[in-house]
Amino acid sequence: MATEGRVYNFSPGPAVLPEPALRQAAAEMLNFHGSGMSIMEVSHRTPVWEEIMKKAEANLRALLSIPANYKVLFHEGGATHQFSAVPLNLMGEKAEADYLCTGTWSKKAAAEAGRYGKVNVICDPGKVCNHVPDLKDWKPFSPTAAYVYYCDNETIEGVEFPEPPSVPAGIPLVCDMSSNLLSKRIDISKFGLIFACAQKNFGPAGLTVVIVREDLVNLKPHPHCPTIFMNKIQADNGSMYNTPACWNIYVANLVFEWILSLGGLAAMEERNKRKAAKLYDYIDASGYYSNPVKKEHRSHMNVPFLGPKDIDEKDFLAQAKKAGLVTLAGHRSVGGFRASIYNAMPEEGIDALIAFMKDYAEKHKK
Amino acid sequence: MATEGRVYNFSPGPAVLPEPALRQAAAEMLNFHGSGMSIMEVSHRTPVWEEIMKKAEANLRALLSIPANYKVLFHEGGATHQFSAVPLNLMGEKAEADYLCTGTWSKKAAAEAGRYGKVNVICDPGKVCNHVPDLKDWKPFSPTAAYVYYCDNETIEGVEFPEPPSVPAGIPLVCDMSSNLLSKRIDISKFGLIFACAQKNFGPAGLTVVIVREDLVNLKPHPHCPTIFMNKIQADNGSMYNTPACWNIYVANLVFEWILSLGGLAAMEERNKRKAAKLYDYIDASGYYSNPVKKEHRSHMNVPFLGPKDIDEKDFLAQAKKAGLVTLAGHRSVGGFRASIYNAMPEEGIDALIAFMKDYAEKHKK
Repeated sequence: MATEGRVYNFSPGPAVLPEPALRQAAAEMLNFHGSGMSIMEVSHRTPVWEEIMKKAEANLRALLSIPANYKVLFHEGGATHQFSAVPLNLMGEKAEADYLCTGTWSKKAAAEAGRYGKVNVICDPGKVCNHVPDLKDWKPFSPTAAYVYYCDNETIEGVEFPEPPSVPAGIPLVCDMSSNLLSKRIDISKFGLIFACAQKNFGPAGLTVVIVREDLVNLKPHPHCPTIFMNKIQADNGSMYNTPACWNIYVANLVFEWILSLGGLAAMEERNKRKAAKLYDYIDASGYYSNPVKKEHRSHMNVPFLGPKDIDEKDFLAQAKKAGLVTLAGHRSVGGFRASIYNAMPEEGIDALIAFMKDYAEKHKK
Repeated sequence: MATEGRVYNFSPGPAVLPEPALRQAAAEMLNFHGSGMSIMEVSHRTPVWEEIMKKAEANLRALLSIPANYKVLFHEGGATHQFSAVPLNLMGEKAEADYLCTGTWSKKAAAEAGRYGKVNVICDPGKVCNHVPDLKDWKPFSPTAAYVYYCDNETIEGVEFPEPPSVPAGIPLVCDMSSNLLSKRIDISKFGLIFACAQKNFGPAGLTVVIVREDLVNLKPHPHCPTIFMNKIQADNGSMYNTPACWNIYVANLVFEWILSLGGLAAMEERNKRKAAKLYDYIDASGYYSNPVKKEHRSHMNVPFLGPKDIDEKDFLAQAKKAGLVTLAGHRSVGGFRASIYNAMPEEGIDALIAFMKDYAEKHKK
């Protein structure tokens, strides 16, 4: 069991946060850095806040080695807002984009983009999203598409791209990294735009980070794009065209600092690979549980698994809860179980989960 | 001076929050109600969260006596999002709306709405927004407008409507109450839609409450309205079409509970009237400071004031800060000073401000 009655929380999001970040947020709740105010009470037009805003951007830039020709924007709202904001900002007069569908979230994004222009679905695994379709099954990219869109990690199905897809030169690659940004090193220069909501790997829901190449910031948005969605407006105003989601950014920055203190993304990636391998190895060897995803496309963040046909899922979840292991239900659309093992899930959490699963399997194997 | 090195914070937003709410948020940061998780870590698809969501809505309904035929929605983002969302949801095929302009925020809202249809500016005080224009100077309402829009309290200029405006029967009244919702009793049935961002009177930035009459929820939105902005979608999904801004809603609910514990909006209104009267009375009698707003339109929430022409504003602000009175600068667009005295500003804060202003005036009067 974790410290102080804390549990191991395998929630897909909002999700486990690093304890040091939570402790600091609690400790300075009534008086942030001698200001005499909670950070929730501080005006965003004051030096106290501006310093956090600057630090948050600098820390994120340091973690991801973001090149100087990319803007870092802190938008309010979630990934769903970006499902609209991406086509509204980037489709332009081409009014066409290519979408790689590999699971629930990329399909939702494609459907929303289809409200603003022509969407070419380049690949789609069909009903059962347990792999990235083979290249030979992809339709050709459109030479007139404004961008190619994909979701690097499908949170619900647990399908992750081992590498970003190759796209035609000159066509920007847009990526939803909501559930795996900051879990591994990435080469930002391969992308035109990356977005990620905070509530998986770096903070409370209500905040979405957008990392966008400068030339794309300057595209003319759709005439009906809400002003607050415009990347150009947010870039020109340092993400403060309106009051930003201050608390959410503040917590995100505490998480950025925690990742830096552990050695940055190289260390995080190594730790995440080890954690995921341990869990998948156990599942594969268990003879009781199974993971439905093609091995090379298995997510390092979200591990869906099934028991045998006759498993009493409610009982499994209830027993797990008693053992201090919570939020292990699969997404309501797919059922089964899912362990989300983001950055802040300690390795001890994986060990505790495996120990419980082993014990449960032994008791229920026939 | 307030407790524990806390200051009196006159910020226009993010703004002062009730200390009991902050203390509770800090105390349960690592383990919310025995769940073993921070409320920031709890999945929004679990009973732990659903209970807060229900409580928040029930408490808001109780505070404002919201009739059953109104939906309460918790949107992510700020009032600026609603500047677009209102016309996108409500203009419909009429593609026309009437806007009462009384200050910065209603003008911004009117400009944004003009991107989606015809906007009739019914009144506009011109460059100096220090009053609600007299009825005789209003243009006639348009019989074909989809709605009439106004801002009940202009945060920057400190101009508040003493009563909601009368509008033609059958045309819905839409109101931005970002800086005064929950500061006084209101008759919800007079309105078609009310919205208010959280960071003035009830919580951290990143959350906006929308209270909307059922028939308006069912209007067909603009074909380019982002799905996440659709009131119908949010209503049908209990404000959880995507992950809501959980922390922000949680804190808002703590503030709702604090207001209820003090006697609800009748008590709050009385307290706010007393606080505002005290401050305006002092300013008017001081012979040193002045408030530029017409008496009957003075805001109970935001009190802008000026010193004599030769006042050293930087010195005033620095001395005030030394006395534990912070964020008293006027908005960067208008200068001077502004004391925002929302619900959570205790009466002692007003007394401390007046004592300081008196002392400063005596020292600097010529």
